[in-house]
Amino acid sequence: MQKELLIIEQNEIMEMEQRYRATFINSLTGFKAVALVGTMDNSGNENVAIFNSLVHLGAHPPLIGMIVRPDSVVRHTLENILETGYYTINHIRETMVSQAHRTAARYPKEVSEFVAVGLKAQYVNDFSVPFVEEAYVKIGVKFREKVELAINGTILVIGEIQQVHLPHEVIQVDGFVDLVHAGTITNTGLDSYHTVTKGTRYPYAKP
Amino acid sequence: MQKELLIIEQNEIMEMEQRYRATFINSLTGFKAVALVGTMDNSGNENVAIFNSLVHLGAHPPLIGMIVRPDSVVRHTLENILETGYYTINHIRETMVSQAHRTAARYPKEVSEFVAVGLKAQYVNDFSVPFVEEAYVKIGVKFREKVELAINGTILVIGEIQQVHLPHEVIQVDGFVDLVHAGTITNTGLDSYHTVTKGTRYPYAKP
Repeated sequence: MQKELLIIEQNEIMEMEQRYRATFINSLTGFKAVALVGTMDNSGNENVAIFNSLVHLGAHPPLIGMIVRPDSVVRHTLENILETGYYTINHIRETMVSQAHRTAARYPKEVSEFVAVGLKAQYVNDFSVPFVEEAYVKIGVKFREKVELAINGTILVIGEIQQVHLPHEVIQVDGFVDLVHAGTITNTGLDSYHTVTKGTRYPYAKP
Repeated sequence: MQKELLIIEQNEIMEMEQRYRATFINSLTGFKAVALVGTMDNSGNENVAIFNSLVHLGAHPPLIGMIVRPDSVVRHTLENILETGYYTINHIRETMVSQAHRTAARYPKEVSEFVAVGLKAQYVNDFSVPFVEEAYVKIGVKFREKVELAINGTILVIGEIQQVHLPHEVIQVDGFVDLVHAGTITNTGLDSYHTVTKGTRYPYAKP
């Protein structure tokens, strides 16, 4: 590729057609941490929905954040999290991508996306909400806090990691989890999914 | 890989050695949006630092978030952002990874990481803070808001996209930016970097 960069100014961004702009801006973040979030309401209705806005917030206590859009179809997820206080985060493998993407459709609350897209809800020990059976890396999370961002009404949902399920062979001696080996995929934009192959670890950075 | 999952409970996580736990928990988010953030203080000291916690917050206005750890070496970045009100986000390509990783080292504030690691600061038109010359996808950002998360003192820095630089051939007809073509890499854990090759876009999800 020849390096000859186009410069797009803010007024051009604001003049983009709405859907074009959403696709464009969503692409700029980079490759995103994407996963299936499993929940249940107090009546036992199961829900699973794809989120591509996970963010590491801390290791002690182990905290993970995710952004919920105000206009999102996945507000059922937030409602359920607030009702029961628990949710699961399940990494997506290549064989699950088509089903995972389809959880973004607008299903009525009484419809289980597990059934609608063909994924299996899995209950493990006494954890009250469903994991995704097909996933290889799964996190059981307890809701801790929601922070509404006044700037545009998006909500940062913060949870504490309660349990982690993963194949023992993907954990390296220093605690690093090899997500390439686990088959975890990544996402760009609104609808693009990518497998990841090559990886290189670098030594601790010193001046 | 045989699917036989290990279950790690929270008490085991809390008993992990601190560095092991940080490495382990940092890996669980998935593949992360990582980039170099360029800033300058009011005295003209340049700074560039790697962040692996970028998150899309909205397209209208175009907002991007990033998490700054309270104990982070990259606090110079936050200080500079608050001083000048501007920063740049620069995607990392494979040939830049070694330098990008080394920006995480603890340099004194008067040392420019651009010089220390061998990247070139680039000034474009009237944007007041440096971009990274070597990058192919660059975003000029205006600081909008910081939200301190009471739960552990981390800070969510919210910025508004002012301008975007990228090769015209990576923009598809619907606004999607092909980051594989642009050579953008991704990160897992604290120190692992990955190129991404294969990608598939899926149609809009309907029930």
